[in-house]
Amino acid sequence: MHAPIPRAAVRALESSRIREVYNDGAGIPDLIPLWVGEPDIPTPDFIKRAANASLAAGETFYSPNLGIEPLREAIARYQQRNGRTVTADRVCATSSGVNAIMLACQAVLDPGDKVVTLAPHWPNIGAIPLILSAPVETVPLHLAQGQRGHMIWRVDLDRLLAAITPKTRLALLNSPGNPTGFAFTREEQQVILDHCRRTGTWILADEVYERLYYEGPAAPSFLDIAGPEDRVIGVNSFSKSWAMTGWRLGWLVAPPALMDGLAKLVEYNTSCAPVFVQRAGVAALDEGDAFITANAALFRRLRDKTAAALSTVPGVTAPVASGGMYSFFRVEGLTDSLAEAKRMSRGAKVGLAPGSAFGPGGEGHFRLCFAQQEATLEKALGRVAGWLRRRG
Amino acid sequence: MHAPIPRAAVRALESSRIREVYNDGAGIPDLIPLWVGEPDIPTPDFIKRAANASLAAGETFYSPNLGIEPLREAIARYQQRNGRTVTADRVCATSSGVNAIMLACQAVLDPGDKVVTLAPHWPNIGAIPLILSAPVETVPLHLAQGQRGHMIWRVDLDRLLAAITPKTRLALLNSPGNPTGFAFTREEQQVILDHCRRTGTWILADEVYERLYYEGPAAPSFLDIAGPEDRVIGVNSFSKSWAMTGWRLGWLVAPPALMDGLAKLVEYNTSCAPVFVQRAGVAALDEGDAFITANAALFRRLRDKTAAALSTVPGVTAPVASGGMYSFFRVEGLTDSLAEAKRMSRGAKVGLAPGSAFGPGGEGHFRLCFAQQEATLEKALGRVAGWLRRRG
Repeated sequence: MHAPIPRAAVRALESSRIREVYNDGAGIPDLIPLWVGEPDIPTPDFIKRAANASLAAGETFYSPNLGIEPLREAIARYQQRNGRTVTADRVCATSSGVNAIMLACQAVLDPGDKVVTLAPHWPNIGAIPLILSAPVETVPLHLAQGQRGHMIWRVDLDRLLAAITPKTRLALLNSPGNPTGFAFTREEQQVILDHCRRTGTWILADEVYERLYYEGPAAPSFLDIAGPEDRVIGVNSFSKSWAMTGWRLGWLVAPPALMDGLAKLVEYNTSCAPVFVQRAGVAALDEGDAFITANAALFRRLRDKTAAALSTVPGVTAPVASGGMYSFFRVEGLTDSLAEAKRMSRGAKVGLAPGSAFGPGGEGHFRLCFAQQEATLEKALGRVAGWLRRRG
Repeated sequence: MHAPIPRAAVRALESSRIREVYNDGAGIPDLIPLWVGEPDIPTPDFIKRAANASLAAGETFYSPNLGIEPLREAIARYQQRNGRTVTADRVCATSSGVNAIMLACQAVLDPGDKVVTLAPHWPNIGAIPLILSAPVETVPLHLAQGQRGHMIWRVDLDRLLAAITPKTRLALLNSPGNPTGFAFTREEQQVILDHCRRTGTWILADEVYERLYYEGPAAPSFLDIAGPEDRVIGVNSFSKSWAMTGWRLGWLVAPPALMDGLAKLVEYNTSCAPVFVQRAGVAALDEGDAFITANAALFRRLRDKTAAALSTVPGVTAPVASGGMYSFFRVEGLTDSLAEAKRMSRGAKVGLAPGSAFGPGGEGHFRLCFAQQEATLEKALGRVAGWLRRRG
């Protein structure tokens, strides 16, 4: 009998270093956890009520693979309110944002197909193509001086375009980005789209943080400039903007020719999201704009507070995130962010994610999720700054 | 610009012929739909209450990838009540039964790996390996005289064993089976397990109908006879036994060495099932035994009624299902079950699934889901028998 081990491609997937710090720090009293990408506010009541009403009405049966029509239409209306001409027939509801990426990758990636992405990146973006036996090439983001004088994460567009060739099947682009808070400009997106039209490359645009954007009401989206026949798939999620991480609901916008294939893939992955969860999604979309606006304003203030507090520490480069919920900051001389994050859990009683969890270029940094109650965040920032000062 | 179409492997997946009949028959007044694998009773209130309580308590955040501990422990207790020595550390909660199969296949199948399964089969069982670029070989089930004189679906064990060689990575075995109601005996399972130990082949046992079994309280399970180190993965689901199709909750039982890999794969597929759905699962497991027993007794009566009614029709061979919710019956001279199912929707006002939806050997049959209110089923059986008589 052989030892029951999974395939090499799965063994090669890194275990989450975020989880390793989390497990190591479990049970430390008075620790403030800023390691996970999760706002600390529960889902608003008006969203929960929609789920309760659906359950009470006995909606405990299968849904169509692409989602119930009211949800697909609410998503289309939401996109239209944000200035896009997306119609409901191009919408596929999914069992979370990460599930949307998995489905889109299953739709376009054969084994051996080349994928290009940016780094540092969300671990899931690197892992999903590998599960499907598609190799991933990363193009590095870098810290640079922004227009307003502060540091921001930027892409080297020439390097990205050079990496995307006619042999590249998919460009998997997360903007605003986790962990860096990097965001494409409209002009950069247009250049990338034009380039990918020439190379025949699919763009999978992970835009789950588009409404947590601090340079305007919504981040530039590839859906703003792509036509319905372009090889562009947009990924979104209810998790971040509507404080619904635990609901596992997301969506895809795709070309019409892809929808039949996506419906089949949904059938063979989860078949559908629960109808009562989809009803909650309808309430979130139709009644949630004020919630998002208020949250984005709060998070913007928290972002500024975070960058200001960390920037006072010698040896720390704390960029200002264009979007998202994170500060991904550099610490001079930091070479083992995993070990240091564990020490900080005990010593400073703040849980951060180690930069090495986020792929090439991540070492030497920490990720801090600033989407917290303001008083909690202030306390945490004091502790982190103090720890880093003593360390330096 | 190239046309935006999905990969060939996805285009090659058959669209659901069940859905084709369903769409064709949508809007026919007074039609009785027996095409989908779904009991027509809503989820019991004691299960819904657990979800509502969880939502009210604000459990709207991420769960651990393998599921919350109370659910994993409730699943272990449930398995133990059914005579198995499964411990909670070998349990992985999943976002539905089909999601469990997808995860298990991602854990063990590299592109090109050989899969063996039985046919006729649930379409999803044939499709999932193909999505992962793993070819599927089917071994035919056949109709035979059972011990009590009536017809049943059986496996030719010699053919199955001959198909499983050292080159076979996975045997994907659904028992009790959809659509046939076929079930392995304990002796057959032991022979298969012994054989797969020799060939080094994984067994993925889809046992979601194990409690809807009519020869005893639970169908023989590979988990009854496999040790924790065997290459055996058990798939189960809350959908059928607890009338929770719409909740999308299932689970895997796997060898300890597989659990780390499964946790990673859950992270990259859906990250977790919603906590409030998992709480509903705990209630189902801990308080649902009486519900299952009553339901199985009812379904057994409905199964007998179905076989008896269909057997009176000349040219019809109606086997008696050992488990599950379906009668998969043969109609003499039937060569296009898809077209005939559409005609029957209009002519007899009963919706059946065409046999051709279920892979090799399915043509010439219909699948009828008998898990209905008794009066509804009786009416439907009268209509189907009348239609088939007039046809013959």
